[in-house]
Amino acid sequence: MSISPYELSIPTFQRGFTVLTKLLDKAEAFAEEKKIKTDVLVNARLSPDMLALAGQIQRLSDTAKGAASRLTGTDAPSFPDDETTLADLRTRIAKTVSYLATVPESAFEGAAERTVVLKSRGQDVTYTGKDYLLTFALPNFYFHLTTAYAILRHNGVPVGKLDFLGRT
Amino acid sequence: MSISPYELSIPTFQRGFTVLTKLLDKAEAFAEEKKIKTDVLVNARLSPDMLALAGQIQRLSDTAKGAASRLTGTDAPSFPDDETTLADLRTRIAKTVSYLATVPESAFEGAAERTVVLKSRGQDVTYTGKDYLLTFALPNFYFHLTTAYAILRHNGVPVGKLDFLGRT
Repeated sequence: MSISPYELSIPTFQRGFTVLTKLLDKAEAFAEEKKIKTDVLVNARLSPDMLALAGQIQRLSDTAKGAASRLTGTDAPSFPDDETTLADLRTRIAKTVSYLATVPESAFEGAAERTVVLKSRGQDVTYTGKDYLLTFALPNFYFHLTTAYAILRHNGVPVGKLDFLGRT
Repeated sequence: MSISPYELSIPTFQRGFTVLTKLLDKAEAFAEEKKIKTDVLVNARLSPDMLALAGQIQRLSDTAKGAASRLTGTDAPSFPDDETTLADLRTRIAKTVSYLATVPESAFEGAAERTVVLKSRGQDVTYTGKDYLLTFALPNFYFHLTTAYAILRHNGVPVGKLDFLGRT
């Protein structure tokens, strides 16, 4: 038995957003306990030239919906990246998860062989659906999810590896 | 066309170690330019209770060889986690990559249905091979690769997303 592009994308992304939601729950509880404004965490970053937590979540959303859209040849909704609060980010996550739920498994028929063209620094990069998923979408999704985790942990939020693995 | 457990593991891990090697090349060049001992980077971490760079690379190695071993029902070499320098870490990576190259695609026959049992905090967690790969091995692999990247970037090493995606 092999693994389908659907299984590797929609349920993987849904699981990731469930993990992220629990990380944000812990961040919110931490902020409340320490009397820190949650804005501080939303704007926290690991390096001055890296995206803050808000940006990591916006790119996580875009990676997931971009993959669902490109692998099925259908349109995904566009979100304007205007989230500035934890509540806004939760809404972004909810909108992303709602969209993912509308993409049926049947739409992934032939996804591995589909031609996917990405713009990267002004140049077109052409992938097969399979290569796009394995070498761009999945690494990028986990990159932003891990970086969101790392930003919170770096700032003292008591999250651990079992949270990241969705085993809590 | 679907995606095989082999494609999702061995080539994915090999690509990850190629990315990591280039990140370490940049770390070494940065340390030399700034006259920083590379030990500083090897022992850098994002939070006092998170693994340092060395530990992230050790766990990355273990995740890759554990997955290759468990999905094929064969033994992987054990490495003692005694790396203390960048050169040691490069040797650990080389040993891991050499081992991965010895695991043939044919050994992954039936991997998705194989029963995998992991010890986690003293308890057995039982997976199918497919669930182990999708919900443990791949997220964990990318977790440690991203965290290694984040540690370097947090410390000023000029690495970027294209390095992480292996497009440099």
